Amino acid sequence: MKRNSGRFITVEGGEGAGKSSNLSFIQGLLEAAGKTVLFTREPGGTSLGEEIRELLLGHKHTGMADDTELLLMFAARAEHIHQKILPSLSEGAWVLCDRFTDASYAYQGAGRGLGQERIAALEAFVQGDLRPDLTLLLDLPVEIGLARAGARSEPDRFEREQNRFFEAVRQGYLEIAAREPERVRVINASQSLDDVQSQIERVVADFLEAEDG
Amino acid sequence: MKRNSGRFITVEGGEGAGKSSNLSFIQGLLEAAGKTVLFTREPGGTSLGEEIRELLLGHKHTGMADDTELLLMFAARAEHIHQKILPSLSEGAWVLCDRFTDASYAYQGAGRGLGQERIAALEAFVQGDLRPDLTLLLDLPVEIGLARAGARSEPDRFEREQNRFFEAVRQGYLEIAAREPERVRVINASQSLDDVQSQIERVVADFLEAEDG
Repeated sequence: MKRNSGRFITVEGGEGAGKSSNLSFIQGLLEAAGKTVLFTREPGGTSLGEEIRELLLGHKHTGMADDTELLLMFAARAEHIHQKILPSLSEGAWVLCDRFTDASYAYQGAGRGLGQERIAALEAFVQGDLRPDLTLLLDLPVEIGLARAGARSEPDRFEREQNRFFEAVRQGYLEIAAREPERVRVINASQSLDDVQSQIERVVADFLEAEDG
Repeated sequence: MKRNSGRFITVEGGEGAGKSSNLSFIQGLLEAAGKTVLFTREPGGTSLGEEIRELLLGHKHTGMADDTELLLMFAARAEHIHQKILPSLSEGAWVLCDRFTDASYAYQGAGRGLGQERIAALEAFVQGDLRPDLTLLLDLPVEIGLARAGARSEPDRFEREQNRFFEAVRQGYLEIAAREPERVRVINASQSLDDVQSQIERVVADFLEAEDG
């Protein structure tokens, strides 16, 4: 799965991390540097991916086996990779993707307690040696993120459980960043948008310099 | 994935091998021996399995990636295993299944040329150590099978291509039987129904004797 010239950049982060506005900002930086950018997200806009997404959402609460859920998620990912990501990379486009496999490790693995090694088995199966060249992890404390995302400030029992889940997701992401500091750059997303964007600008500039220089 | 007392029996075979009538015959033999039998087939009658089957059939000719197809097939299988096969086995039922993973090796692997090792990776992921305890392979020459299944005797170009595909499927099945002669018992299905059923009767009697004796 090697490609000629495009680069694969992903953006990860929990609730309220400001992913949407920062994704547009990153796309602008890359285009200003003369790159052709394909912006995408899972399930990747393939019609099959959308149908798989409906299966996942429709059966979420009716006791689908964990393995089934993981296999369906990676089936959608396989389609996204083969129909969209790899063809774009091989045409020289830079692919900017809103969440990718790190999210499976963080949400299904760390958050819901599915085995990391089961996710790794499917990652190897579906992706071969395809990995993001750069991942920006928008990190912030769970309470700040949930408050920004509109949750109440005084959590009830359900929200406290939610908090534990999102805390595990955050730790899952930070562990990936600790294991792969070259690929995964942590952005402190609890700061003001201006401050966040100057961190992003620096990371993207470093990456472009290393790639082009 | 160990279970207390049930046994898992699968029946495999190509076109025209007489699977349906022989499955009923086998079910009758097991029930006559006092076993509670669950008869099932993939995608296993789970509602999710049926929806996955529709995805597979609906997108068959629109360029679904091979990996996507395999992942969807094994997602349906995972659901079948977790919702139906394992619970039945653990309640002591004998599960009789019309085709299982050997069919993936024969049709997708040998027939369509997908890598055996890719199928093995998903088999290990989905099944753990669950394997059929006994598999009856109804084997017969492709021409006889297709003639029985209603194909014309004078093949056109498309049918000759079909023949090559079914020949590869047959060889794929026979290779599995050669590798696992204890589990996979080859039944010569080109004989008369009476002769076929006395072969089956002997294999099932041997198996019951080994299990109970």
